[in-house]
Amino acid sequence: MGSDLSEERTQFLREDYCRGFIQYCRFEPEVIERGYFQSRVNIQKFHRQQDGFIHAGVMATMADHTAGYAAFTTVPEEFQILTIEFKVNFLRPAYGSGLVCRSRVIRPGSQIIISESEVFDQREGGEVLVAKALVTLMAVPKERLHP
Amino acid sequence: MGSDLSEERTQFLREDYCRGFIQYCRFEPEVIERGYFQSRVNIQKFHRQQDGFIHAGVMATMADHTAGYAAFTTVPEEFQILTIEFKVNFLRPAYGSGLVCRSRVIRPGSQIIISESEVFDQREGGEVLVAKALVTLMAVPKERLHP
Amino acid sequence: MGSDLSEERTQFLREDYCRGFIQYCRFEPEVIERGYFQSRVNIQKFHRQQDGFIHAGVMATMADHTAGYAAFTTVPEEFQILTIEFKVNFLRPAYGSGLVCRSRVIRPGSQIIISESEVFDQREGGEVLVAKALVTLMAVPKERLHP
Amino acid sequence: MGSDLSEERTQFLREDYCRGFIQYCRFEPEVIERGYFQSRVNIQKFHRQQDGFIHAGVMATMADHTAGYAAFTTVPEEFQILTIEFKVNFLRPAYGSGLVCRSRVIRPGSQIIISESEVFDQREGGEVLVAKALVTLMAVPKERLHP
Repeated sequence: MGSDLSEERTQFLREDYCRGFIQYCRFEPEVIERGYFQSRVNIQKFHRQQDGFIHAGVMATMADHTAGYAAFTTVPEEFQILTIEFKVNFLRPAYGSGLVCRSRVIRPGSQIIISESEVFDQREGGEVLVAKALVTLMAVPKERLHP
Repeated sequence: MGSDLSEERTQFLREDYCRGFIQYCRFEPEVIERGYFQSRVNIQKFHRQQDGFIHAGVMATMADHTAGYAAFTTVPEEFQILTIEFKVNFLRPAYGSGLVCRSRVIRPGSQIIISESEVFDQREGGEVLVAKALVTLMAVPKERLHP
Repeated sequence: MGSDLSEERTQFLREDYCRGFIQYCRFEPEVIERGYFQSRVNIQKFHRQQDGFIHAGVMATMADHTAGYAAFTTVPEEFQILTIEFKVNFLRPAYGSGLVCRSRVIRPGSQIIISESEVFDQREGGEVLVAKALVTLMAVPKERLHP
Repeated sequence: MGSDLSEERTQFLREDYCRGFIQYCRFEPEVIERGYFQSRVNIQKFHRQQDGFIHAGVMATMADHTAGYAAFTTVPEEFQILTIEFKVNFLRPAYGSGLVCRSRVIRPGSQIIISESEVFDQREGGEVLVAKALVTLMAVPKERLHP
């Protein structure tokens, strides 16, 4: 899938990415291409547990949300993305100054989309893969989505 | 597994539950028994997405953290609990005024512990099951855990 | 969901359950109700590993297939069921003379259906829960399914 | 992780791979390196469902078992590998003449090991990725494993 999103669409996704709970968590978009989304967060005290490790929930939320936006880059503009389910493995404890999440669509579709997310811990000496997720998403016409 | 935790241990778990990222998310412990942990959160604007639904990351974090504390009630005091992995299905959109998470240990163990979490959305008219998770945890001696 | 399937539909599901790979694995249907399916298998030598334990793949296949048929009991007759994904935890080694799988729909739907499967090992002294799965399924009109 | 297994160890893993249920399913090892295991199966009628598609249980069993042997290549000889849990996404229907499974250890460890499996369908025109799994495994000293 090539990097052929319009400027406008890219800008929309960039702004749409970080509202509500995601804004509260301070996640930010970094790279947006068709089928790919990369986000990051500067780790602050509230992202950690009492023992200094970054909370698994921070990584899981980032893996899910970024996977959803990778899917979002592949659907027409009148669709929204819902997470049906995800699974995440925590490979190593994370304790660095930032996290980067790289999400790729591994199965595009008009309804069911599968993305994969990798979360990297930014530490002295470089990046380390700390979590990996497989995420099942659904594209839903916007007008069907109302609380 | 009976409800035979000491007052002291229960109090420790109650306070330990809500620090760092969990405090930031405003989750609170409700019921603590051996093999069972129940938590809740009053939903605020920052828990939602732009469309008014509660963010999947809120439910996932709650399902994971509460599952970990259900496991925590079953291990000796010198152990900590780490999440190895979890999987969560989002069954229906959540949009109510609160979430309740009920987590049970379904396979106790000295090393590997499996918990199951159910997240309920509190709406007008009652509670609805909105997410279900299977969580694989590991009990680790405290002294081995240092960032 | 009540047990209100027609005799005819029940009979169809009973026969449809055990063809191809499932027949080869010798799984058999036991109880069929709307939203619930129970299957069993008498363990033979080929179901085991070299060390005498029942292979995880036997339990996973049973958990998946039976979950699919639980979903099948909830959809109109012109639909088939596909597995989108599943996750299974193996709680304890299985080594008995039979396995029973009990699958329930925990989220019905016209497209996406979520079932949960529990696999029990039949040993001297009774049944023991050995595996638990969460299964995401999709109902698809038959005419769309052709290899 | 380099390809530095001894001839003897490689031969042991090759033979150990295909016993019991795996032999019954006709899976065969192809490539064995430290941290990597590749297997294949020629599809026969009994691997299929009544509609001609290869059964999800065949792919799940292959993804699990091959992931376990990828882990097996990384542990000392006195250890066995158990599957704690796995999650598999079925990306597309499989209907070809063979399946190839490629499994890699993405997180080595002395106790907990995480592998990833990709299953490819061999069709006219080439290979297509049809399933992807994340597998959590445990290395256990042989003497602790007795039914």
